[in-house]
Amino acid sequence: MTIRVAVAGASGYAGGELLRLLLAHPEVEIGTLTAASNAGTPLAQHQPHLLPLADRVLADTTAEALAGHDVVFLALPHGKSAALAAELNKDGLGGDVLVVDCGADHRLTDAAAWDRWYGGEHAGHWPYGLPELPGARAALAGTRRIAVPGCYPTAASLALAPALAAGLVAPDVVVVAVSGTSGAGKSLKPHLLGSEVMGSASAYGVGGVHRHTPEITQNLSAVAGTPVTVSFTPVLAPMPRGILATCSAPLVSDVDAREVYLKAYTDEPFVHVLPEGTWPATAATLGSNAVHLQVATDHDAGRLVVVAAVDNLTKGTAGAAVQSMNIALGLPETTGLSTVGVAP
Amino acid sequence: MTIRVAVAGASGYAGGELLRLLLAHPEVEIGTLTAASNAGTPLAQHQPHLLPLADRVLADTTAEALAGHDVVFLALPHGKSAALAAELNKDGLGGDVLVVDCGADHRLTDAAAWDRWYGGEHAGHWPYGLPELPGARAALAGTRRIAVPGCYPTAASLALAPALAAGLVAPDVVVVAVSGTSGAGKSLKPHLLGSEVMGSASAYGVGGVHRHTPEITQNLSAVAGTPVTVSFTPVLAPMPRGILATCSAPLVSDVDAREVYLKAYTDEPFVHVLPEGTWPATAATLGSNAVHLQVATDHDAGRLVVVAAVDNLTKGTAGAAVQSMNIALGLPETTGLSTVGVAP
Amino acid sequence: MTIRVAVAGASGYAGGELLRLLLAHPEVEIGTLTAASNAGTPLAQHQPHLLPLADRVLADTTAEALAGHDVVFLALPHGKSAALAAELNKDGLGGDVLVVDCGADHRLTDAAAWDRWYGGEHAGHWPYGLPELPGARAALAGTRRIAVPGCYPTAASLALAPALAAGLVAPDVVVVAVSGTSGAGKSLKPHLLGSEVMGSASAYGVGGVHRHTPEITQNLSAVAGTPVTVSFTPVLAPMPRGILATCSAPLVSDVDAREVYLKAYTDEPFVHVLPEGTWPATAATLGSNAVHLQVATDHDAGRLVVVAAVDNLTKGTAGAAVQSMNIALGLPETTGLSTVGVAP
Amino acid sequence: MTIRVAVAGASGYAGGELLRLLLAHPEVEIGTLTAASNAGTPLAQHQPHLLPLADRVLADTTAEALAGHDVVFLALPHGKSAALAAELNKDGLGGDVLVVDCGADHRLTDAAAWDRWYGGEHAGHWPYGLPELPGARAALAGTRRIAVPGCYPTAASLALAPALAAGLVAPDVVVVAVSGTSGAGKSLKPHLLGSEVMGSASAYGVGGVHRHTPEITQNLSAVAGTPVTVSFTPVLAPMPRGILATCSAPLVSDVDAREVYLKAYTDEPFVHVLPEGTWPATAATLGSNAVHLQVATDHDAGRLVVVAAVDNLTKGTAGAAVQSMNIALGLPETTGLSTVGVAP
Repeated sequence: MTIRVAVAGASGYAGGELLRLLLAHPEVEIGTLTAASNAGTPLAQHQPHLLPLADRVLADTTAEALAGHDVVFLALPHGKSAALAAELNKDGLGGDVLVVDCGADHRLTDAAAWDRWYGGEHAGHWPYGLPELPGARAALAGTRRIAVPGCYPTAASLALAPALAAGLVAPDVVVVAVSGTSGAGKSLKPHLLGSEVMGSASAYGVGGVHRHTPEITQNLSAVAGTPVTVSFTPVLAPMPRGILATCSAPLVSDVDAREVYLKAYTDEPFVHVLPEGTWPATAATLGSNAVHLQVATDHDAGRLVVVAAVDNLTKGTAGAAVQSMNIALGLPETTGLSTVGVAP
Repeated sequence: MTIRVAVAGASGYAGGELLRLLLAHPEVEIGTLTAASNAGTPLAQHQPHLLPLADRVLADTTAEALAGHDVVFLALPHGKSAALAAELNKDGLGGDVLVVDCGADHRLTDAAAWDRWYGGEHAGHWPYGLPELPGARAALAGTRRIAVPGCYPTAASLALAPALAAGLVAPDVVVVAVSGTSGAGKSLKPHLLGSEVMGSASAYGVGGVHRHTPEITQNLSAVAGTPVTVSFTPVLAPMPRGILATCSAPLVSDVDAREVYLKAYTDEPFVHVLPEGTWPATAATLGSNAVHLQVATDHDAGRLVVVAAVDNLTKGTAGAAVQSMNIALGLPETTGLSTVGVAP
Repeated sequence: MTIRVAVAGASGYAGGELLRLLLAHPEVEIGTLTAASNAGTPLAQHQPHLLPLADRVLADTTAEALAGHDVVFLALPHGKSAALAAELNKDGLGGDVLVVDCGADHRLTDAAAWDRWYGGEHAGHWPYGLPELPGARAALAGTRRIAVPGCYPTAASLALAPALAAGLVAPDVVVVAVSGTSGAGKSLKPHLLGSEVMGSASAYGVGGVHRHTPEITQNLSAVAGTPVTVSFTPVLAPMPRGILATCSAPLVSDVDAREVYLKAYTDEPFVHVLPEGTWPATAATLGSNAVHLQVATDHDAGRLVVVAAVDNLTKGTAGAAVQSMNIALGLPETTGLSTVGVAP
Repeated sequence: MTIRVAVAGASGYAGGELLRLLLAHPEVEIGTLTAASNAGTPLAQHQPHLLPLADRVLADTTAEALAGHDVVFLALPHGKSAALAAELNKDGLGGDVLVVDCGADHRLTDAAAWDRWYGGEHAGHWPYGLPELPGARAALAGTRRIAVPGCYPTAASLALAPALAAGLVAPDVVVVAVSGTSGAGKSLKPHLLGSEVMGSASAYGVGGVHRHTPEITQNLSAVAGTPVTVSFTPVLAPMPRGILATCSAPLVSDVDAREVYLKAYTDEPFVHVLPEGTWPATAATLGSNAVHLQVATDHDAGRLVVVAAVDNLTKGTAGAAVQSMNIALGLPETTGLSTVGVAP
């Protein structure tokens, strides 16, 4: 089986990580690569680490350029995916194509939430590419449309879902997540310069204003079966990749939390509850699709604390995209993906 | 006025930062420097950045070596300060000396808390070197004993004290604090190697087991006038210095939080509430005694979120020690200290 | 074909990288893992990124433990490989085993050089695992003993060999190579602590005293057919991995250097001469077996300058080991290896 | 004595470092601050570490705005200083003002070299702000115009001048200098993003094309009394600040190099030859005006190797500016400057 794929947004960080993973995928053949302002230039200029594709010239991101593939990955700024996906449905442009959207356009189920957090018309909701959530695999099987989760929601949702599903905690969670800078993309902003970032930790999007907040809320509320209140603060740390999410909620049960987590993830190939006494470090997940979790109960504070580490570009974006593609196409879910990080 | 000071533990990070600040203090003359296993070696071997003291040879850390100074700074492992301070009281060894303990021995007021978190006999409580807390300056004025706060408690206490004092929030707080590696000292542990630390964020002391937890609780409970529940998680980030503490608590008041903070710190020379819309970055505080704060109210989550940045070695340790010494000796509080960071 | 391999020194950085690559090698089955002081502990404690091997318990490093495999990789301190390899030759302990030594013991051909730089008896010379050097592949084919090159010699030799072989430059070279900290291993030394390393570049082994100097000299002299004088200075940079070697020598020819390099490496799967105008960055090689090279002629200074980037743990150590194993066993040379780096 | 100073280019890295040092200078009062595109905004937006100047609003960079000060510091892109300085000479705009140019406009003595490396008309040569070079102090005393050296030339010149002056080495030098990213300024270029920089060392300006090359050549040729050939390669390392220059040249004398260096710098307050056996690390110079040097003779390679560490923004730019201002105004040369670095 050879799956011919195209990647839109191939010069960005998510696009580059998609290509890195797809190059290692045994069933995939890489077709058209597109970009916006970088169209017309060779990929080597933007992704010097992808030697096998160095001479590929980036096409303009159009439905025509992306047509004729089995799978189209979209790694575009939010608001750009919906229109492109609609065009890909047209006759002759690959109506049966699998579209995997790494952007935010099709993640939220609630049009009002979309309007509040992103603005403009809601493009609708696609099957959500976090297979480890209840019901997600079934929705992904055979689908032709996938909404890849945001990186923070991936970490926070996997950290808290078992506790909420099992009723261990009250539906009122606090998430403080440290992220590497690639999460902000390649945009040329002063605060993302190396000189500013190195040696510094900084807060941003404080007070619940980060756009990943409603996505975390949506996921956790679905799992809990009741509206969950989410306080989410992202923190920028001096590292290129990685998310370390510290998540907590008031304990309301005496059930052994560790047992709940071990059971919840026992069959999951990518989610790993660490041995007792060891705590996640993002480096151990670098470049892999693994999620490292650890759980603690703080009886003084009356809270459950769960820490999750993921690579924001891999399991947090491109790895989830490939994992979900595998499910959609009926391939073994782990094809082309690894739980082995690149460390140190 | 010339104040003759000695520093015990001069080869460590806290000791080095004390010396850096004391070299810039116009009223101070640096006397004996001591160390444990590094005794007998020149300071240059351990603190190559302190050129003016390069040839100073480290003495053994004994009361005799430290005697005869106006001020003795102790930058020792916990449990080592109490006995040494007691000896310094003896006849002929400087009974009137000002002892500034950068360790934990004399921070906790509660002997049971000491026993639970550190073990062994409680050495008693000394005036607490966080002058910005209510009542602290009065206790420090003229004292001959100072307990310098821990770095995390400094950040968390200054971040949350105004809100608790003003009744803005419920006494149930969550603190997730990102720290640079110097907070762990120079101990040779595998997880502190550069290869392990760089490119990685990691959790440790999760679930309320970090020894700074009771100190945060003690400070905040005193300010709130009621026991405060504290969930504290430290996170190690790939940077040498800096603490960024994200602190939150349930909102229980409609009062404008920003106004409360501006008012609380209006006369404080080292605590700075940032302009609206900007958030703290640790780099801006590097090497300075400044605390950068910002405040947000998250009405969806019903929480107040306060973020504080400090340099863990300066305001978090050695700067607080010098600031408190200034108060104890009747010097202007800011002598020898700066709010100007070294950035980028 | 299933190749059963053992790794001695599995808890260190070279051992960890060997295992990371071997886990991705389609023909390999991972057998015994051994360690010195870490024997008896599970691999997860030392290599948390190698999830599939997390529960493997490390055996003591003995010939008995390593016997019975097709290939034994030795990632040991220098001086430890020779005796172990000799024991593996004994009856019943796998006399026909392929031993791949990642240490220095069998790299130098000259016993006097060994004695000067390492001391003690010379263990002899094994086929050298830098297949891109003239004659190396032939020596590796079918061998049962491989000496894996040092990381700096790999970068410097590949950077300068074509120019010396073609007579472009005089045999008098200057190499200044920036390295990440993993090159120093996991040894617990103060100057390798994260707090010391981050934000700092430092020199060490200046003046030709680094032990990789004679290995560079040996390689380049063989290629040049005349003794080459080597000035080598290593520099430690704040990054976990990567070597960037800036190499230069006096120009003595008008031949187009770039053409020489393109031709020299045209058939090499892992050595890549970058497009004109772009210069190597170590990040693009991270975790890959690729070497990125660029060449410039400086007519004012009368020197050829060649810059090479490699990952010190991959092409610089473990990747070269696997590449050489492939050749020795008659497998396609690139099996299990990639030219795709993990970036950003 | 109160010296009223203005800083043009106050929102950049050199401007920020000037202000950090000037805030600590006991004789200085900070007047007008100007910027180009950032004019009209408060300094806090660009230099959050300079709390005492947070509310200062940046003026447009014009001669009128800068008039009326005793000293004007120019931290501008090259080519911008000459015209502005000329205007400051006009009647009523402060003809007697001391102009300290941190840019390149007035460093080169040779108009042809200026035209080759920068292009356009040569603005002429001003007294050169590297007081440690022979004759420099005399030229700076009482001057009203100062050309502050480039950061790389500072490190390379101080590393090699004594050896060339003493005839220890042939006039044919190789300099490979590792730099932090602030040397590239705040320009928004993709390769300067934190995600690109962290974890990576990269070469640029290879083959003698970096504009600091003629400045190094000029300095060393003057010292040697004969034209010196310079091969210079800059390397970008993942750190905000610091230059570590590895400099070498063929040995042509048996004189003890270390003695030569100790003697050459014995009276220099800012240049420090490290104790034997220790090598420079940039962290030890961070934020200070110190230069750390070490010397080795490599008899195998027949070369002298000298390594210098400086903070590119302090001794490499703003510290040299202040040091030179002190000399020009007849103040003690070290006023407001420190040899104490901020480490770790």
